[in-house]
Amino acid sequence: MNLTLKVLPQGRSIQVRKNTVLIEALHEAGVDLISFCNKQGLCGKCFVEIMKGKRPEPGAQEKWLLARKRLPGNFRLACLYRMTGDLTVRIPEEATLPLMPVLKRGFRRIIQPNPAVRKIVFAPFRPDLASPLSLSDQVRAHFPSPGKKASPALLKDLAILLDDSYGTVTAVIYDGAEILDFEAADTAEQNFGIAIDLGTTTLVAELVNLNTGKTIDVVTALNGQARFGADVISRITAVFQDPLKSEALRTAVLDSLNTMIEGMLKKHRIPAHRVYEAVIAGNTAMNHLFLGSPVKTLAVSPYHAVFSALSPLPASETGLLMNPRGKVYVAPNIRSFVGGDIAAGLTAIDLAHQKGDYLFIDLGTNGEIVLKKGRQFTATSTAAGPAFEGMNISCGMLAVPGAVYKAEYDDGLKVMTIANRPALGICGTGLIDLVSLFLERGVISPQGHIKGPEKKIGVGPNLFLSQKDIREVQLAAAAVKTGIRLLLSLDKLAVADLDGIYVAGAFGNYLNIPNSMRLGLLPRLDKKKIIFVGNSSLAGAKALLVSRQERARCERLAQKIRHVSLATDAAFQKTFIEALEFRAWK
Amino acid sequence: MNLTLKVLPQGRSIQVRKNTVLIEALHEAGVDLISFCNKQGLCGKCFVEIMKGKRPEPGAQEKWLLARKRLPGNFRLACLYRMTGDLTVRIPEEATLPLMPVLKRGFRRIIQPNPAVRKIVFAPFRPDLASPLSLSDQVRAHFPSPGKKASPALLKDLAILLDDSYGTVTAVIYDGAEILDFEAADTAEQNFGIAIDLGTTTLVAELVNLNTGKTIDVVTALNGQARFGADVISRITAVFQDPLKSEALRTAVLDSLNTMIEGMLKKHRIPAHRVYEAVIAGNTAMNHLFLGSPVKTLAVSPYHAVFSALSPLPASETGLLMNPRGKVYVAPNIRSFVGGDIAAGLTAIDLAHQKGDYLFIDLGTNGEIVLKKGRQFTATSTAAGPAFEGMNISCGMLAVPGAVYKAEYDDGLKVMTIANRPALGICGTGLIDLVSLFLERGVISPQGHIKGPEKKIGVGPNLFLSQKDIREVQLAAAAVKTGIRLLLSLDKLAVADLDGIYVAGAFGNYLNIPNSMRLGLLPRLDKKKIIFVGNSSLAGAKALLVSRQERARCERLAQKIRHVSLATDAAFQKTFIEALEFRAWK
Repeated sequence: MNLTLKVLPQGRSIQVRKNTVLIEALHEAGVDLISFCNKQGLCGKCFVEIMKGKRPEPGAQEKWLLARKRLPGNFRLACLYRMTGDLTVRIPEEATLPLMPVLKRGFRRIIQPNPAVRKIVFAPFRPDLASPLSLSDQVRAHFPSPGKKASPALLKDLAILLDDSYGTVTAVIYDGAEILDFEAADTAEQNFGIAIDLGTTTLVAELVNLNTGKTIDVVTALNGQARFGADVISRITAVFQDPLKSEALRTAVLDSLNTMIEGMLKKHRIPAHRVYEAVIAGNTAMNHLFLGSPVKTLAVSPYHAVFSALSPLPASETGLLMNPRGKVYVAPNIRSFVGGDIAAGLTAIDLAHQKGDYLFIDLGTNGEIVLKKGRQFTATSTAAGPAFEGMNISCGMLAVPGAVYKAEYDDGLKVMTIANRPALGICGTGLIDLVSLFLERGVISPQGHIKGPEKKIGVGPNLFLSQKDIREVQLAAAAVKTGIRLLLSLDKLAVADLDGIYVAGAFGNYLNIPNSMRLGLLPRLDKKKIIFVGNSSLAGAKALLVSRQERARCERLAQKIRHVSLATDAAFQKTFIEALEFRAWK
Repeated sequence: MNLTLKVLPQGRSIQVRKNTVLIEALHEAGVDLISFCNKQGLCGKCFVEIMKGKRPEPGAQEKWLLARKRLPGNFRLACLYRMTGDLTVRIPEEATLPLMPVLKRGFRRIIQPNPAVRKIVFAPFRPDLASPLSLSDQVRAHFPSPGKKASPALLKDLAILLDDSYGTVTAVIYDGAEILDFEAADTAEQNFGIAIDLGTTTLVAELVNLNTGKTIDVVTALNGQARFGADVISRITAVFQDPLKSEALRTAVLDSLNTMIEGMLKKHRIPAHRVYEAVIAGNTAMNHLFLGSPVKTLAVSPYHAVFSALSPLPASETGLLMNPRGKVYVAPNIRSFVGGDIAAGLTAIDLAHQKGDYLFIDLGTNGEIVLKKGRQFTATSTAAGPAFEGMNISCGMLAVPGAVYKAEYDDGLKVMTIANRPALGICGTGLIDLVSLFLERGVISPQGHIKGPEKKIGVGPNLFLSQKDIREVQLAAAAVKTGIRLLLSLDKLAVADLDGIYVAGAFGNYLNIPNSMRLGLLPRLDKKKIIFVGNSSLAGAKALLVSRQERARCERLAQKIRHVSLATDAAFQKTFIEALEFRAWK
């Protein structure tokens, strides 16, 4: 016998079989009711208002959960309600899943938060003489699967929390399978995580509310490892030659990250122990150095990694400033020199689910390039160097307030700075604009020579480009160009065949397309097909932080991507030398 | 179509369906071939000799495994052999499961070793440029399920182990789900564990070969916590009054255990890092104190525990002298004052699978009593004090060489000492014999008074019993007697209804039955029905150490046992006072 379920405020009616659990019927009808406890009547998130229909008496636990939210008597938990007659329910907005936009600029994609870290409030009962249940038995009864693994250290803390009062406590559950911690009182709303873009030159950390997926703050800083070498190769070599340096490099980046995190947490008055998960998206070498893993095998042929994918680690093993019982998830490396940052970035733009042939270019200290042809992915990595991040350039700086990020020629050279501050230096996009303008106006030759006797081009007060700076841009652009050419030729595709080019990097959407094309950094393609996705590594890290589904997709993708090494390609040297000349693609 | 499989040396023939995997057919035929890798062709343990029938070419991995054992060409791994024609195989003795007797004295039971810790040898291949697989991918390909969880710390060690050589390594697998460690070369034969009887007064540690279940050594020592109080209550109270003492008590017992373990390992030249698991069987309070868990809730009514059952803990969290990456399994506590030692003991004698009504009495510092009526178990605990272990007695000592363990009267008092050494003191069984003899001969009254003016009874040179010693025995016996009486009356059983009484304790089988009955310590029952099982807690710990099946059985049993608290029984006081008199049961 079918029953009618009417859902307000939408007003839709659906047919439901008798004895169906309400939450199942609603999920089937496309209403995304929240459930943190896997529909077990524990979390109290899926409350709905019964407008018309039976209202059976709630049990003790349900009553307690509804009372905590001060809900009137016609509210019930949808996971504990079985349909026995026609029903009209109203869905409160707070009971449905929030939506989170990925990559706000350039590319929009919406995902639903489904974080690995869940907080569930519960009230242990005081044992009595007739039934002196142990605390561990109580925990196990409440959380059947994760409760089984509660450690003595955790139970000890719970015993101390409860002591004589037996008040409300909050359990922090990980992936439905593990209890990470217990907290005094109801802290369900305080569930925070940190997404980290672990760049070779630049670090970005984003503080996120895990329940809603909302960003609280974002900070950028230089990677403290820079003093051991500007690029991946020089840092790996430093450790290879002196393995004791491994710990020095590890603590250098850790110190940078912890300073960033500390600043954000202080500003928003969030205690570090309320942060239970961090996601790291970095290239393979950065991930290895962050965890203090040996990098010897990355330094010598055949360049293999110690790890690609890892299970989430105990935070205490990483030293990150967060709850030491929390977890750190490292986005899966694809192969030796195409890392978790790319896997995360591809997940952020959901490239696997788009039809057609696409290039994905991530411009950082490494230039990673992924070509998607139909359903096949091929990735490679080129050593672009840190020029695009404003490093190794006489007046270079990160893309932070005061950096020249844009330049035009109109009656004379005009430069724009981030936040309109007085110019302090030149960041990556400004550099590309300047070199392109100087090339157009004949100040430098296509071979990169500065014409005239000065060998230095003035840009503003105390700002200039040297001959060495031009060379750095030339080498970086040539590396990327070569990578693109080789991948296209490997898959027998022409630029014109592409349905689009995704451009990612710290650049954001400030990169000037005509200028980039003039230097040959980007192939010539209809401007509409060039899609700037900004820092896709960070956006991906955030997607992995707030959604278990995105994590699973990312892991699947990382396993299927084919990797080619440019170093082994016979055509590399020749293509690279040709690419050194500043020239638009034919 | 059925095929014929003939099994030598037994000579049995069985019918097998085509395409059956040989190991499955053999298991069905009752041949217990070993498999450490869950029949995945990884461990090389299930080798058999093909006497007649097809001998397909082995694959690379199989070839490698067979070559390591230097087996001739007609040997094959039974888990990789599919039956396609009639077959005659010979089963080498080394390929079948060894058997392990439980509780050699008094009670025989045979179990098959199936330890949680398994060692599997493998040879990682050297990555090449065409396929630069990461180490973690190699591990995952080799060990699909546990490999997924290999931590960076573990992978780091593996990378260092392999370095340039890519030789053989041994993976230590736990419960088929986790890789604990990697060791250089083939260490499969070196797989050790320690079973520990964590007594209030006496500690016993047994070093075991986990592959064979064979005991290598056993040592006994006093629990270093004794200086904080002779019994459980006084130690709990000490911590309750000063929580900082928790750490002092924890390290006291840890220090005792580590000294014992160190001695055994040194003697047998086994490095501590080859010990990957320890099983602890202790009463609830001892388990809590060993782990530094709060005991406040055990000190006050309603006397509930912080934990009953626990998942295996990382050894590093316990401080035991063994591989810090190993595991410590704590036998599940039944309830506040009936602990894992009893759950282990009941598992050792497999009481759950015996028909009839039985009493189980464990005589230690606590006297635990379990009554099995049909399929129902009821347990209680009495505070016997350490007299039965020779403590709190003027000339008392543990049951070690030199202790008077037996006494007779025949032309005068005759005492026997353990190992025939000169008498140093009196242990528990000796004490019971002496008190019983003195009672029989009228030297002491049934009320426990020493007759005559001396208030001291000489036993030998420098050996005597004081009035206080007699009182200790009186209190200990009365506590046990009362527990037995109340359990029987609760279940409406008479002594004569019992099918047997299991008597466990450090006593072993030295306890003199008529003497014990004369004091009323044991009820009067046909001597044949009294079964001494010795240290069943230790035997149980060993069973749990070497067999995952026994562990599962023990956990099920611990959950089903009902617990009654004597303290809440109105009849306790009255029964106890009556029981103080030395008198045989009616």
